Amino acid sequence: MEYKFSDRVQTLKPSAIREIFKYAADPTVVSLSAGNPSPDAFPAKEIAEISAKVLAENPISVLQYSVTEGYTPLRRHLTEYMKKKHNTGSDNDDILITTGAQQIMDLCTKALVNEGEVVICEAPSFIGSLNTFRSYNARLVGVTVEHDGMNTDELEQALIDNPNAKLIYTIPNFQNPSGVTMSLEKRRKVYELAVKYGVLIIEDNPYGDLRYSGENLPNIKSFDTEGAVIYAGSFSKVISPGMRVAYTIAPKPIFQKLVVCKQGNDVHTNIWSQYVCDEFITKYDFDAHLDRLRAIYTQKARFCMELLDKYCAPKITYHKIDGGLFIWCDLPEYVDMPEFCKTAVLNKVCVVPGNAFLTDEKETCHSFRINFSTPTDEQLERGIKILGELAKNL
Amino acid sequence: MEYKFSDRVQTLKPSAIREIFKYAADPTVVSLSAGNPSPDAFPAKEIAEISAKVLAENPISVLQYSVTEGYTPLRRHLTEYMKKKHNTGSDNDDILITTGAQQIMDLCTKALVNEGEVVICEAPSFIGSLNTFRSYNARLVGVTVEHDGMNTDELEQALIDNPNAKLIYTIPNFQNPSGVTMSLEKRRKVYELAVKYGVLIIEDNPYGDLRYSGENLPNIKSFDTEGAVIYAGSFSKVISPGMRVAYTIAPKPIFQKLVVCKQGNDVHTNIWSQYVCDEFITKYDFDAHLDRLRAIYTQKARFCMELLDKYCAPKITYHKIDGGLFIWCDLPEYVDMPEFCKTAVLNKVCVVPGNAFLTDEKETCHSFRINFSTPTDEQLERGIKILGELAKNL
Repeated sequence: MEYKFSDRVQTLKPSAIREIFKYAADPTVVSLSAGNPSPDAFPAKEIAEISAKVLAENPISVLQYSVTEGYTPLRRHLTEYMKKKHNTGSDNDDILITTGAQQIMDLCTKALVNEGEVVICEAPSFIGSLNTFRSYNARLVGVTVEHDGMNTDELEQALIDNPNAKLIYTIPNFQNPSGVTMSLEKRRKVYELAVKYGVLIIEDNPYGDLRYSGENLPNIKSFDTEGAVIYAGSFSKVISPGMRVAYTIAPKPIFQKLVVCKQGNDVHTNIWSQYVCDEFITKYDFDAHLDRLRAIYTQKARFCMELLDKYCAPKITYHKIDGGLFIWCDLPEYVDMPEFCKTAVLNKVCVVPGNAFLTDEKETCHSFRINFSTPTDEQLERGIKILGELAKNL
Repeated sequence: MEYKFSDRVQTLKPSAIREIFKYAADPTVVSLSAGNPSPDAFPAKEIAEISAKVLAENPISVLQYSVTEGYTPLRRHLTEYMKKKHNTGSDNDDILITTGAQQIMDLCTKALVNEGEVVICEAPSFIGSLNTFRSYNARLVGVTVEHDGMNTDELEQALIDNPNAKLIYTIPNFQNPSGVTMSLEKRRKVYELAVKYGVLIIEDNPYGDLRYSGENLPNIKSFDTEGAVIYAGSFSKVISPGMRVAYTIAPKPIFQKLVVCKQGNDVHTNIWSQYVCDEFITKYDFDAHLDRLRAIYTQKARFCMELLDKYCAPKITYHKIDGGLFIWCDLPEYVDMPEFCKTAVLNKVCVVPGNAFLTDEKETCHSFRINFSTPTDEQLERGIKILGELAKNL
């Protein structure tokens, strides 16, 4: 047989970055390239308790088919929690439980973006979402991320230049990969531009609960009187990514289309894990759990920045972060970044070259991304020491 | 905001059938319209045992991010099992774990079918899969299901008439909704035609293990020397649908594209449930469990057919089944089927009108589908008695 794939999939090229990741499987290589929660961050004992309880009390409901929208108590509790704690979501919205937040990107692109239409992204941005947009043959237009978020002049120009733009994709808190948090002023401006040009925002907020310093800023969705924002939340970073439970708060007409698309995608999200998340956020002290996570990651983030100061300055500079799991590091402009990352991995430390996160990964980029949540302190020190030595020799 | 949805989603019309299902939520209505496993069929005790064990032994691996392809031991065990027991899968294939078999339909359509290209389906066929194909703006072409499976002359004509056909979708065992099992001769013929015209087959086999009479027939995939068959298997009917764990055995080049599409869809399937399925099929007596399920459903299927004989003959006739969860019933040609089903639900029994399963649900159809796995025996008797009374008055 000769195989002929669809046009949308033919445009998906295997990433050049993957070659580098192959080396990361070598157990002697320190991986600073992942984005996994720390092994210390899982409430494993509580999950085991809850699981035993729900399987004993409701075995059939936990194992049977369920509804596409998601487990009703979980939807109700999340709606209340997000409204009360973050002023996020209104009577014009509804909430859909999804199989990870990646599925939100998939369903939104499917429901809203024709092939060839534009998704405006931050540059750099989360590679997983960019690849989902690409998988529907959407065209990506990047807007520069500054120290306080998207350049909003560039955003407006992109909206003017691309009347077929359908979505603006942003991670306002501790952005992956840049670590940048969007200022309140820019949050308001991005929202205002979205409404002005009639283009929906996807506000992706996986790290919002992981703030280590500074004040919480309101979600863009909290301004959303016009129904212009699709909010994406997730339990992956605060309970468990292996369970694949996330949620989107979206204007009702969009919610309804997302439900139809999800029905054809995976019918519903693993219901057992939905029960577990619901019990965990309602019957346990979820806020105390989040405090514990913040304590773990605050320590790791500070330690990582200290190591960068100690071993890598002045050749490698970095952007101080207030939260999240990533630190964005810069090298001098004359450095070939993919080459540097390749040398690094051959020297047993794996980081991700910044160009992987651009809308066109062939563009030049003088930064790389470090993740500090997954490695142990010992691994972090070993890895960053190697990076420092390599930088000295540049 | 004014919302403009993608072309592919605008073609997704809310089904007329949904109106009928709304009544099925009424607890006084006997639902014979679902497709859920019997509440007696879940190995809930074993699942609780396994879950406690894997969470105690491997909490991090069970809760952490995992690989898109699926849990490696589960992939290996399934590959061995399917090869040994069903001669299904070869060195030219690879196996991908998916979030239910619905996701296999989604990924295959995404990877293989451009908008406007054709998917050839059995008529009638499983509504969930049809809706997934539709959600990518594929054009559906139906081929009549006879007592021994697809009319293969019609299939060949459809292949000639539609040079842009990309997939042939079939459920060869105890088809949903018709209950029909495709003969060995037709399995070979369908395979031969697929190879001749260079069109891939999706062989969807959720019910294959649920045979109550007659001899097992080889899977179409067992003939697949040319790499023309994508096999879809699932744990939904034999362990638990709520866990959403299924698998596809596909030629390697297709497997690779499906992996890329799945990465952008939900990253990976709930890994906890993958561990549970793996332990259940390897550490427990899976064959004895399947025997137990067959015993449960054989009793229910026979009881359902007896009730149809007792209460519904001669106005309602039905097709004897050898397995699966559904019985296809015929009414006299002068009956308006959607109207009959609407009357039925107002009389407290819900069945699905056959036209819901056609490529165009506005076509006439004189059949309806009964599910016997979900209701209790008492509910089955009550429901079928009502149907018989309604039929008498036609």
